[in-house]
Amino acid sequence: MVAPEWVAEHTERFLGAVARLSGSAPPPVPAEPAPDALAALVAALGPDLAECDRSIVARMASPVALIPQVAAHIVAAGGKRLRPLLTLAAARLCGYPAAPAGVRHVHLAACVEFIHTATLLHDDVVDESRLRRGLASANAVFGNKPSVLVGDFLFARAFELMVADGSLAVLAILSRASATIAEGEVLQLETQNDLSTTEGRYLEVVRGKTAALFAAACQLGAVVAERPAAEERALFEYGRNLGVAFQLVDDALDYAADQAALGKTVGDDFREGKVTLPVLIATEAADAQERAFWVRTIEAGDQNEGDLATALALMERHGAIAATLARAGEFAEAAQQALAAFAPSPFREHLSAIADFTVSRGR
Amino acid sequence: MVAPEWVAEHTERFLGAVARLSGSAPPPVPAEPAPDALAALVAALGPDLAECDRSIVARMASPVALIPQVAAHIVAAGGKRLRPLLTLAAARLCGYPAAPAGVRHVHLAACVEFIHTATLLHDDVVDESRLRRGLASANAVFGNKPSVLVGDFLFARAFELMVADGSLAVLAILSRASATIAEGEVLQLETQNDLSTTEGRYLEVVRGKTAALFAAACQLGAVVAERPAAEERALFEYGRNLGVAFQLVDDALDYAADQAALGKTVGDDFREGKVTLPVLIATEAADAQERAFWVRTIEAGDQNEGDLATALALMERHGAIAATLARAGEFAEAAQQALAAFAPSPFREHLSAIADFTVSRGR
Repeated sequence: MVAPEWVAEHTERFLGAVARLSGSAPPPVPAEPAPDALAALVAALGPDLAECDRSIVARMASPVALIPQVAAHIVAAGGKRLRPLLTLAAARLCGYPAAPAGVRHVHLAACVEFIHTATLLHDDVVDESRLRRGLASANAVFGNKPSVLVGDFLFARAFELMVADGSLAVLAILSRASATIAEGEVLQLETQNDLSTTEGRYLEVVRGKTAALFAAACQLGAVVAERPAAEERALFEYGRNLGVAFQLVDDALDYAADQAALGKTVGDDFREGKVTLPVLIATEAADAQERAFWVRTIEAGDQNEGDLATALALMERHGAIAATLARAGEFAEAAQQALAAFAPSPFREHLSAIADFTVSRGR
Repeated sequence: MVAPEWVAEHTERFLGAVARLSGSAPPPVPAEPAPDALAALVAALGPDLAECDRSIVARMASPVALIPQVAAHIVAAGGKRLRPLLTLAAARLCGYPAAPAGVRHVHLAACVEFIHTATLLHDDVVDESRLRRGLASANAVFGNKPSVLVGDFLFARAFELMVADGSLAVLAILSRASATIAEGEVLQLETQNDLSTTEGRYLEVVRGKTAALFAAACQLGAVVAERPAAEERALFEYGRNLGVAFQLVDDALDYAADQAALGKTVGDDFREGKVTLPVLIATEAADAQERAFWVRTIEAGDQNEGDLATALALMERHGAIAATLARAGEFAEAAQQALAAFAPSPFREHLSAIADFTVSRGR
C-alpha cells in the first residue's frame, strides 16, 4: 500500500523527530532511567521490539504530512512502550516464536501502541494537558484539531493493521477493549467533581480507561500462539490487574511524585477535580472541616494558592498515598497470581517482575 | 451482551430524546421537508430502515448514561440518514433480501451511521461549531470532552458490530474508509487559510472527508450480496462521485443557503478560513483588489463586519456558486453513469434519483 522508499524516508524523519524531542538517541527512549525489570524485558525482547518499532513507523506513514509529524511526537513522548512490550512478552511466554520467525505478535503490539497513542492524543485534548512525560503535549505543540484527527487516524490505522493480520478473534478483543476504554473515560467525566463516587465506581473507571488495554494487550499473546482459553483468560487477568495497579500508582504519583521524574505537572488531577483513590481515602477519613475543604476544592472547583499543599498535608495525615500504593500492591499481586496458569519460564519471570516494577515506581 | 429490557428502556429514552430535540415525532426526522427522491427511497426501504434504527439504538446502549445521551443527540441531529440509506439501497439493488429475511445490510448500515456520527462529533469539536442542522451541536450542549470521547465510543462500537457480522472484507472496507476520512480531515487543516490550494488538492480533501464513507457505504451493498468485483467497484464509484457532489453542494450552500433551511450558520466556512471550491473559483478570477480582500480575510483571517457580504458579492460577480454547483452536477452525472453496471431496476432508479436530489438541494 505504501512504497518502501516512502517508508524509509519517513522512518528517517521519525527517528530524527524522536532524537530531536528526546535531545539524543533513537527509540525506545524512556523519559526516566529504565529500571531493571523493564530494561531486562526490553533486552529479552530485542529483535521483537525493534521489529515492532519498525512496524509502528511504517504504519503511521501518510501522504498527509501532519499525520506522521503528530504521530511521531506522541509516540516519542509516549515513553516506555509498556503495552506493546506486554503483547510481545505474553506471546513469547505462550511459546510464539521470536521475530523474524514470528511476526503476528509484532504487528499486534503495534496495533496496541496505536490505540494507546490515539487515546493519549484525545486524553490530552480532553484534559487540556500541556505536558506529557516532560515534553510539550501534542495539543500544546500542534493544537487540539490535529490531536483529535490524528488520534482518529491512528485508531483507524490500528484496525487496518488488524485486518491485515486477518484474525476475527483479535479484532473482537481490540474493538471490545476500545469501546471499554471510551466508556471508562466517559464514566470518569461523570465522576469528576463528585465526592459521592465510591471506590467501586472509581475502580470501574480504572478498569475501563487503563486496565482494558493492558488486559487485551496480554490476552493477544495467547491468541497468536493459539493457546487454550484458560491461558487467554489468565493473561487477560494478569493484564487487567496489572493495569489497575499501574493506574493507582499513577494516581498516587500525581500527588506524591518528584515533578521532574514524573514528567508531568504534579497536582493535575487535583486541579481538574478528578476523584481518584487518594482523594477518596482522604475524604473518607475527613473531619467536618477537612470535608468542607474537599467539597470546596474538588466538588465546587474553587481552588486558591496553597490548596494543593493543604490537600497533600491531609493525604499525609490520613495515609492516603500509602493506602493507595498498598491497594496497587494487592492488584500487582493478583496479576502475579494469574501467571500461575503457566509453567515457570524466563518470560513468566519477566512478567512477574514487571508487576513488581509497576508498584515500585511509586516508592 | 446487553439485556433486552435494558435495550427497551434505552430505546424509549432515545425516542424521547429525539422527540424532545425535534419538538415532536420519532426518527427519521429530517430537519428540512423530505424531498421526493429521498422520501421515495425511505418508503421503498421501510422495514430495512426501521430495523436499522432499532440496531442503532440497541448498539448505542451503555451503562455509562452520558453515552446514549450524547449519541442520541447527535444521531437525532444528524438528519436524513443518507449514508445508511445508501448501504441499504445498494444491498437491495444487488438482490440482497429485505429485512427481516436479510439482516447483514441493516447492521452494516448502522456501522456506517456510527462512523459518520463519530466524525460529526469530532468535526464539531474541531470546527468549534455551535449548530448542527438547526439544533445546538453536541459540543455546545455537553462540552468538548463528551463529544470527543463518545465519538471514540461510537467508532469502537462500529467495529464491534462489524466483528459480530464476521466479514473481514467488510472490516477492510470500513477501516480503510475511516483512515481515509481522517486523512482528508487533516489535509483540510493543512489547506485552511492557504489560497495556493489547487482544485485538485481540494478534491483530495473532499474525497477523504466526505466521499470515502459514501463510497464504502455503497460498496458494502455488493459485498453482503456477494456480487462480483465489477459491481463492488461500480457501487464504490457511484458512492464516491455522489459524495463529492454532495460536499460541493454543501460548500455552495455554506455561502448561498437560506440559514433556516440549511440548519447551520451561513458563512461558517468563510469565518474558519476554509478554502472550498467557491473561494477557489472566486480567487482564480479575482483582480488585484479582490485578491487583496481574499488574502486578508481567508489567509490572514482578518475579518470585519460586512466582509461576508463582500465575499458573497465577489462570488456572485464571478459566478462562483453557479460554477461550484455545475461541478457538483458533473460528479452527480458520473455517479449515475456508474450505475450502468446494473440492469434497470427500481433500486437503480432510486439511486439515480438520489444523485439528482443531491444536486437539486443547491438550486
